[in-house]
Amino acid sequence: MTTNPTLRSFIPVASDCHFPIQNLPYGVFRRRGEEHFRVGIAIGDQILDLSVIEQRGFFNDTALEGNNVFSDSSLNRFMAQGRDVWHEVRQCITRLLSEDEPALHDDDELCRQVLVNTAEVEMKLPVEIGDYTDFYSSREHAQNVGTMFRGAENALMPNYLWLPVAYHGRASSVMISGTDLHRPIGQTKADDAEAPTTRPSRLVDFELEMGFFIGPETKLGKSIPIENARDHIFGMVLVNDWSARDIQKWEYVPLGPFLGKNFGTSISPWVVTMDALEPFRCSGPAQDPPPLEYLTSNDEAQALDINLEVSLQIDDADKSDVICRSNFKYLYWSMDQQLAHHTINGCNVRTGDLLASGTISGPTPESYGSMLELCWRGEKPIKLSHGLTRTFIQDGDRITMTGWCQGDGYRIGFGEVTGKILPARELPASNPGATQTQSTHQR
Amino acid sequence: MTTNPTLRSFIPVASDCHFPIQNLPYGVFRRRGEEHFRVGIAIGDQILDLSVIEQRGFFNDTALEGNNVFSDSSLNRFMAQGRDVWHEVRQCITRLLSEDEPALHDDDELCRQVLVNTAEVEMKLPVEIGDYTDFYSSREHAQNVGTMFRGAENALMPNYLWLPVAYHGRASSVMISGTDLHRPIGQTKADDAEAPTTRPSRLVDFELEMGFFIGPETKLGKSIPIENARDHIFGMVLVNDWSARDIQKWEYVPLGPFLGKNFGTSISPWVVTMDALEPFRCSGPAQDPPPLEYLTSNDEAQALDINLEVSLQIDDADKSDVICRSNFKYLYWSMDQQLAHHTINGCNVRTGDLLASGTISGPTPESYGSMLELCWRGEKPIKLSHGLTRTFIQDGDRITMTGWCQGDGYRIGFGEVTGKILPARELPASNPGATQTQSTHQR
Repeated sequence: MTTNPTLRSFIPVASDCHFPIQNLPYGVFRRRGEEHFRVGIAIGDQILDLSVIEQRGFFNDTALEGNNVFSDSSLNRFMAQGRDVWHEVRQCITRLLSEDEPALHDDDELCRQVLVNTAEVEMKLPVEIGDYTDFYSSREHAQNVGTMFRGAENALMPNYLWLPVAYHGRASSVMISGTDLHRPIGQTKADDAEAPTTRPSRLVDFELEMGFFIGPETKLGKSIPIENARDHIFGMVLVNDWSARDIQKWEYVPLGPFLGKNFGTSISPWVVTMDALEPFRCSGPAQDPPPLEYLTSNDEAQALDINLEVSLQIDDADKSDVICRSNFKYLYWSMDQQLAHHTINGCNVRTGDLLASGTISGPTPESYGSMLELCWRGEKPIKLSHGLTRTFIQDGDRITMTGWCQGDGYRIGFGEVTGKILPARELPASNPGATQTQSTHQR
Repeated sequence: MTTNPTLRSFIPVASDCHFPIQNLPYGVFRRRGEEHFRVGIAIGDQILDLSVIEQRGFFNDTALEGNNVFSDSSLNRFMAQGRDVWHEVRQCITRLLSEDEPALHDDDELCRQVLVNTAEVEMKLPVEIGDYTDFYSSREHAQNVGTMFRGAENALMPNYLWLPVAYHGRASSVMISGTDLHRPIGQTKADDAEAPTTRPSRLVDFELEMGFFIGPETKLGKSIPIENARDHIFGMVLVNDWSARDIQKWEYVPLGPFLGKNFGTSISPWVVTMDALEPFRCSGPAQDPPPLEYLTSNDEAQALDINLEVSLQIDDADKSDVICRSNFKYLYWSMDQQLAHHTINGCNVRTGDLLASGTISGPTPESYGSMLELCWRGEKPIKLSHGLTRTFIQDGDRITMTGWCQGDGYRIGFGEVTGKILPARELPASNPGATQTQSTHQR
């Protein structure tokens, strides 16, 4: 599957727009006021309604014929089809949108039916997520956090350079970009306190991550050899893995993060396919010690050159500040390695599973992917516009992440993932009326 | 909802049978050779086909009317209805199966249609599981494992008596009882080795657990007050959380267990409702320090008196040995507390989520719920029939767990969860033909 960087669409696309004809990311949308969500592709500031395109027979020469996968309210059935079908459909759509193809361009009525302005739509989670796994694949991030908590000498755990460390996250609380969330309440304990207290977290943080979705599933008991990993990787999104550092610190021994993470994880609405990203493959960091055989690939271009930025906007101010500039290529462990490792024990993956990278920190302080690192545990506040500063996220602060691959005169972009932290809710109150098994309440 | 211990069904039920009319657990079954699974209830050695019962209008006086929830291949839609509907349906079924009710008993043709011998069926996972959370709620288990790895003085982490520690597990690899599984392959590292190796686990273990399923869901951002927890708890199953101790030991810092756990988790096929278990409520262990307010219930009967047994059968031998006798009531943290804690930060739960207890170890060595504890890290081999011994699980070994509440002349049982460890598969081989992005393979 090759990408033609000079190809143009009849739909106008600015050179810094994230969605040129070389991108064609999938999302799930509806016009505001409509009932049914369906699948579309972003092109410039328009969305091509693939459900109608499919019904009109434009995919009849592909293996999709008759399946109506794009009338679904998730990408799952399409993602399950596999790479050959993804390629066929991409070729079809590329042809349909190109400037020298009249089928759509010259049919005004069809254009009115299938092209929707992005300003008119609402997006939902593009994928029904089965399991959500979060890796820890930035060596710099692990080094930074380890240094803060155990000192520079013991920063990296002995396993770190041998395997892509990961844990299971919460699928139910993965949210679409634009969903605001309340500051979480939980147990925290000050170092000098005798007992923990229940209160709103004081150390709410973001984590700059990216994630990929599984296409074809595997059976329990089967491993995915690293050479076959890309057969199972459909595409990628931006991920903000919101974190409450004080809750996490008190709860996480010995079984790992739980309530400090599972109050919300935000993802961007457009899934950028691996075909669109292919021209931006590059080498990742040298791996020393050399990985074990099941983690060794013959393809040196395991990384992707994706520019990443995080900005912080205070309380709906007119200006936001970029507080982090990082790149996906900094990750020590690649997606192929993550997937090979995840399944080496026979663990099965299902269509729609989300595997996230972990915080993407780079080598320089401005590339650190969390407030914890940017402000070094609160010791170095970030300076913002209007003379304001921040160490962690305050109520009303909005975090927006964006990412793009820079081509020659075009960008393959991810759009953005954004969310605002709202004040904590009240502590849950007793509610005697709602339960039938208790007759007295003494609070 | 009261249970009448003297009520009898017209279907004969032995006094030690797990499924008397006082139980009525839900499962998903089909006759062997049939295409469609549907919902049934176990009674004696029979299954009552609820899909037909519903279609014939026997639930027309309940809120279920017209929903056909029992024609589904999972319990999810029924579980989402909530306690009032669960009660109504239970009353209907109790009446229909009781010895003095002729509607079913005297209709031979209907009986032939709706009563299926359990010997003729296959069962599937009764629930579509969204997220699977595994707690760590046995103080004795945490104490035992902590003692082995950190010494008796530092066995319990500082947070243990303040909050029900938990982590997210893998939903995709939860299996129905009877599914055998291969010994997992993974990275392990001997203490004196310089580098890890990739090989089959040598320390495969079971963990005796129980789990409960979520009925009605909550919205992201809402907490479940402990007094309302039972509105969301539909019923319980036996859980074997298979573990590979050597893989777990090498991988689990700092983010917790991953591949050492997610190669398989087995559950029993029959979901026993909380209504059936209600007569067996009892007090759990005294909690000192007293829990924080959101974990404090006015109901002292937070525990359940459920006898638990684990047996090991070597290589299809004719005899199996009981190697563990424990009880659900030993758990330090109750299900109500687990659910209140899980949602205190606003984490949402969805219908079908599985929350498991963690290994249920009691105060005496014979009540320890894992090989790791029973054999004290391999130091005290278990003696079995025929002069054999075990420290961990060997290829061909079958682990079977069972559980029941002992009433006066009847049992509310869970049936069993069973599974056999098969030899490890081959290490995954390179498969050059299956990938299109690489042209050379040098292995």
